[in-house]
Amino acid sequence: MALYVYKFGGTSVGNVERIKAVAEKVKKAHDLGDQIVVVVSAMSGETNRLVALAKDMQQHPNEREMDVLLSTGEQVTVSLLSMALHELGCDSCSYTGSQVKILTDSSHTKARIRKIDDARIRNHLNEGKVVVVAGFQGVDENDNITTLGRGGSDTTAVALAAALKADECHIYTDVDGVYTTDPRVEPKARRLDKITFEEMLEMASLGSKVLQIRSVEFAGKYNVALRVLSSFTEGKGTLITYEDSQVESALISGIAFNRDEAKLTITGVPDLPGVAFKILGPIADANIEVDMIIQNIADDSTTDFTFTVHRNDYQRAKTLLDKTCVELGARNVTGDDSIVKVSIVGVGMRSHAGIASTMFKALADESINIRMISTSEIKISVVVDEKYLELAVRALHGAFKLDQEIES
Amino acid sequence: MALYVYKFGGTSVGNVERIKAVAEKVKKAHDLGDQIVVVVSAMSGETNRLVALAKDMQQHPNEREMDVLLSTGEQVTVSLLSMALHELGCDSCSYTGSQVKILTDSSHTKARIRKIDDARIRNHLNEGKVVVVAGFQGVDENDNITTLGRGGSDTTAVALAAALKADECHIYTDVDGVYTTDPRVEPKARRLDKITFEEMLEMASLGSKVLQIRSVEFAGKYNVALRVLSSFTEGKGTLITYEDSQVESALISGIAFNRDEAKLTITGVPDLPGVAFKILGPIADANIEVDMIIQNIADDSTTDFTFTVHRNDYQRAKTLLDKTCVELGARNVTGDDSIVKVSIVGVGMRSHAGIASTMFKALADESINIRMISTSEIKISVVVDEKYLELAVRALHGAFKLDQEIES
Repeated sequence: MALYVYKFGGTSVGNVERIKAVAEKVKKAHDLGDQIVVVVSAMSGETNRLVALAKDMQQHPNEREMDVLLSTGEQVTVSLLSMALHELGCDSCSYTGSQVKILTDSSHTKARIRKIDDARIRNHLNEGKVVVVAGFQGVDENDNITTLGRGGSDTTAVALAAALKADECHIYTDVDGVYTTDPRVEPKARRLDKITFEEMLEMASLGSKVLQIRSVEFAGKYNVALRVLSSFTEGKGTLITYEDSQVESALISGIAFNRDEAKLTITGVPDLPGVAFKILGPIADANIEVDMIIQNIADDSTTDFTFTVHRNDYQRAKTLLDKTCVELGARNVTGDDSIVKVSIVGVGMRSHAGIASTMFKALADESINIRMISTSEIKISVVVDEKYLELAVRALHGAFKLDQEIES
Repeated sequence: MALYVYKFGGTSVGNVERIKAVAEKVKKAHDLGDQIVVVVSAMSGETNRLVALAKDMQQHPNEREMDVLLSTGEQVTVSLLSMALHELGCDSCSYTGSQVKILTDSSHTKARIRKIDDARIRNHLNEGKVVVVAGFQGVDENDNITTLGRGGSDTTAVALAAALKADECHIYTDVDGVYTTDPRVEPKARRLDKITFEEMLEMASLGSKVLQIRSVEFAGKYNVALRVLSSFTEGKGTLITYEDSQVESALISGIAFNRDEAKLTITGVPDLPGVAFKILGPIADANIEVDMIIQNIADDSTTDFTFTVHRNDYQRAKTLLDKTCVELGARNVTGDDSIVKVSIVGVGMRSHAGIASTMFKALADESINIRMISTSEIKISVVVDEKYLELAVRALHGAFKLDQEIES
C-alpha cells in the first residue's frame, strides 16, 4: 500500500465538472488500495475575484485580513471535492490549513511553513478515508490564518508529502510534464521522463513555470519524489528526482528562457572597493530584483558594470542608476529593455567540457549576437536581442539533439 | 465606556457599498469611545450560491462538508469589513467562529453553542480595536467547523453579548424595529419602543420574522438587552427587555399572523387513554411539526381531535391520519388547507380580564367566523379562513388602539 499526495491547481478544479473529474481520478487510485491525500487550490478565477473585492474595500488591503479572505477560496474547493468523493461512495474528509494544522510564521501573504501536524490526517487515512487539504494556507501560533503566496498549494503538497513520508507527490497541472523547452517556441520539444531537482530549479527560475520554485526546493530538501502530470490526460508525466544513476545521461536537459529582461550598464566607474555595493545598494533598497551581474575592468582605473532587472523595473532602476552615476563620478549609464535571456540547463555539463563552445557556435551559426554571458554549475545563460529568442531556442534545441529520445 | 455587539445581516452587507456604510456606522460609534464587536452574516446571495454548488456536487451534501463550505460566506464578509474599517483609519481585527473560539456541539448545519472563549476578543477591545466576528459558525471540540443554521448570526451576536456582558446587542435589519403588526397589512401599524422578551418570542414564532426565535430565547436566558434597528436609516429601533416597570403598560403589544396554516380533524375517536399519542405519534415520526392542538369530547365515548400543521405538510399529514383513522376505528378525517392564524400578544393580558371578549367581539363585528381558539398566558390565537386575514388584523389593531402612542 503506497501513500500519494496529489495536488490539483486552480484550472484543474475550475468548475463543477472538473472537480467531479478530479474526484473520479482520486477514487480510481483509492480503489487500487493506495492512501491518497489531495491538496487543492482555489477554483480558477476565485482568487482574482476576492482580490478585486479587497481592493474595493481598501487601497492597500490589510495583509492579515487578505489572508482571511483569500483562504476561503481553497476552503470552498476542499468541501466541494469532498462532497464529490462522497457522491462516488468514496469516504473522505476535508481540512483547512488551520485544521491540519499547518503551522507557519506570521508573514501574512507570504508565510513559510514551520511544522505540520500529521496525526489527524494519518488517523483518517488509516480509517480508509481520502483526505482533502486546502493548499496555500496555514495558521500561525496565535491561530491567525496565513497564506503562502500565490502558487503556495504546490508547497503545501510537498510539505505534506514530506511530513507523511509519502511515496510520491503528484502535481497535476495543465501540461503533461516538463519539456525540453516551451513547445510553443520549438514544436520539436520533448517531454522528459525524469529531471533532477537542480535542473528543475534552474528551469523553473528561468521561466518554465510548471512548478513553484519553493516547492521544488522543499521537495529536494525533504527528499520528496515529485511527479508533474496532466489533470486532463493520462500519462506518466515527468519525475523529478535526485541526481543518481537512474537519471538520463543527457548533457543538457532543457532550454529555458525569459522574455521580460532589461539590462543596465554604468561605464567608467572609478574602480574602488565597495563600488558594487554603492551601485546595487539603492536598487535593492527600492525592492528591485537584480538577476545577472557582470563587471569588467575597462582600463587600469575604471570599470564597467552591467546587470539585468525585470523589464517592469527598468525605468525605476535607470533613474536610480543615473543618480548613482553622478555621485560616483562615473562616465555614463546605458540600457536596453528589449533583451531576453536564454539558458541551457543540465547536470551533465558538470562533467563534460565543450558545452559552452557548442552553445556559442550554435548561436554564431545563426548570426545571433551574444550581449551577456553568465554561468553556473549546471546552466549557461546568454542575453540576446529579443528578436532572436525563438531562433536561439530552436538552434540550441537542435544543437544539443533535445528532440531525440535518450537510450536508457 | 459601553460595550456593544452589533449584528448586520446579509442584506446589510450585500455589496461593497453597503459594507462601507456599515464600516462608517461602526466607526462613528467607536469614535464616541465605546467598545464595539460586530457580527456579520454572509453577503446576501452568497449562501444560496454556495448551496447550489454543493447540490451540483452531491445530491444530499455531506453535512460536515456543507458547514466547511457555508462558513466561507461569513469569513469573506469579516475580512472585507475589517479592511473597510482599516481604510477609515479604524483599527480592527476579524475572527472566524473557530478563531474566537465559539465552541458548539457536533450537530452539523444546526449546531448549538456550548461555550465562548472571550479572552482574545477582550484583549483586542482593550487595545482599542473593533472586533469583527463571523456569525452563524462555530467549531466543535475536534476542530470541525459547524454552523448554527440559517439566521444563526443573530444567535452568535447574542451569545457574544452574553459572554462579553455587553451593554446592548444591536440587531441591524432592513426594518427599523418591531411593529404592532405587519405594516403591509395594516398601514396604521406603529413601531414599538419596547417589547418584552416573552412578547417577542410569541411575535416571532407567529410569523413576525424580525429576529430568530433562538436568539431571542438566548437573550432572555442570559439577560442580554436586544435592540432591533435599521441598517439603512437612523433611529432608536425597538428595545427588547425583561418585563419590568419601564415597559409600556399596553394590554396588547401586537398582532401576529401566520398565513401558511392547515388544519386536520379526526372525529369519532374512541376516547381511551393514549389516543392522543396514537394520533400524533406517526405525525411526529414523519417530522411534521404540529402547532395548535385541540381536543373536544363529542359524546360520552368518543372524542374529536383537531390540530394544525404547516400548509406544505398538509397532504402528508392527511395520508398518515387517514391510516390512523382506520386503525383506531374512528369516524372520519376532515381538513382545510386554506386557513390562517391571527394572534394578539401582550404581557398586559396576564393581569387584565376581558381581553378575549374584546377580541372575539371585534371579529364578530366584521362577521369573521372563528374556526379554532388557542390561548397562552400572553397570547390568544384564532384560526380563521384565509380570506379574512387582512380584515381580522385591521379589526384587532383598531379594537386594541395599537395605532395610538402609549403615554409613558
